[in-house]
Amino acid sequence: MAKESTTIDVGEPSTVTKSASHVVVDEKKKKGFVAAAAGGGYKRGLAIFDFLLRLAAIGITIGASSVMFTAEETLPFFTQFLQFQAGYDDFPTFQFFVISIAIVASYLVLSLPFSIVTIVRPLAVAPRLILLISDTVILTLTTAAAGAAAAIVYLAHNGNSNTNWLPICQQFGDFCQATSTAVVAASISVVFFILLIVISAIALKRN
Amino acid sequence: MAKESTTIDVGEPSTVTKSASHVVVDEKKKKGFVAAAAGGGYKRGLAIFDFLLRLAAIGITIGASSVMFTAEETLPFFTQFLQFQAGYDDFPTFQFFVISIAIVASYLVLSLPFSIVTIVRPLAVAPRLILLISDTVILTLTTAAAGAAAAIVYLAHNGNSNTNWLPICQQFGDFCQATSTAVVAASISVVFFILLIVISAIALKRN
Repeated sequence: MAKESTTIDVGEPSTVTKSASHVVVDEKKKKGFVAAAAGGGYKRGLAIFDFLLRLAAIGITIGASSVMFTAEETLPFFTQFLQFQAGYDDFPTFQFFVISIAIVASYLVLSLPFSIVTIVRPLAVAPRLILLISDTVILTLTTAAAGAAAAIVYLAHNGNSNTNWLPICQQFGDFCQATSTAVVAASISVVFFILLIVISAIALKRN
Repeated sequence: MAKESTTIDVGEPSTVTKSASHVVVDEKKKKGFVAAAAGGGYKRGLAIFDFLLRLAAIGITIGASSVMFTAEETLPFFTQFLQFQAGYDDFPTFQFFVISIAIVASYLVLSLPFSIVTIVRPLAVAPRLILLISDTVILTLTTAAAGAAAAIVYLAHNGNSNTNWLPICQQFGDFCQATSTAVVAASISVVFFILLIVISAIALKRN
């Protein structure tokens, strides 16, 4: 049946015309409904994947933050006045890392309701857009924290002979191990955030 | 005139029907065109803003990379064997910064054609999606470089008494100034990337 067509007013009682017209309307409605359901189904799948990714990211960021927070090592020898000890609070960058990643973890928990809304209403634009924009901002915070901490961890491992900054990982091996783990975990969560943004972008686009 | 309607094949030469049908088609096309033009106009504005932001970001990233690259300071005194000199290549983090930000600037230049495509065809989904995803990845690279360099610049300014890493900015004041400027410029380009991603997200969504 042609899509673009018209009725002819021939001055006769046109019951046939009307009934045929109704059939067309019903068919079109059905088609629209099926299309929406298909789009909704594929977008609901994306939304569920988004939710699971967020749960995983919560675990990883809480892990990263707490590993860094508890990273501490006291050397088994000491002088009369001095005990050799390294903790995350000896490095401002690591303090920034702990605070930032804790903020990221809290944000992820708070974003779960929005993610649930996108599962329930896969075609809603507003929660998707809010998630995408706030995810982007939080991605920046996560990456900055991970990058800064990585620079310091690198320095702790290798030192810098040009500036006489000596490596400390020979002495504080366990501490360095813990901080490196935290940085790797934060980097994984960065990848998760990139995936979350890509999911939101695909879910936002017109079918 | 009803939107959903049908033709009746009455076995007569139906010239009237056909002409009426054409009118309807034209009206529908016009309506569609007007709607597309309205949506297209507002999305074209976004695309032009996107293009201008990219141009600005190219300037800032090239500036950041070259300021860091040329940051060098030789102290006016020297011993028989040693001249005191600081350059970006004394710090692995600053080398990473120069290379990363140069990559970001090249990416931005390469992304200009895609941005132009979105100006010409504001409703096209594919170039928008490509830009959004690659912008997100490049945002991560920019932020990581800026964050890592910021951590080292902070250390150069303040040192760390716990690890006996002495500040070097008292001696190499100009070098520190240049590296700080580069980090600030990179941070501004991070903000630009966030704006670019938000623009792409808004342009992607259904009206």
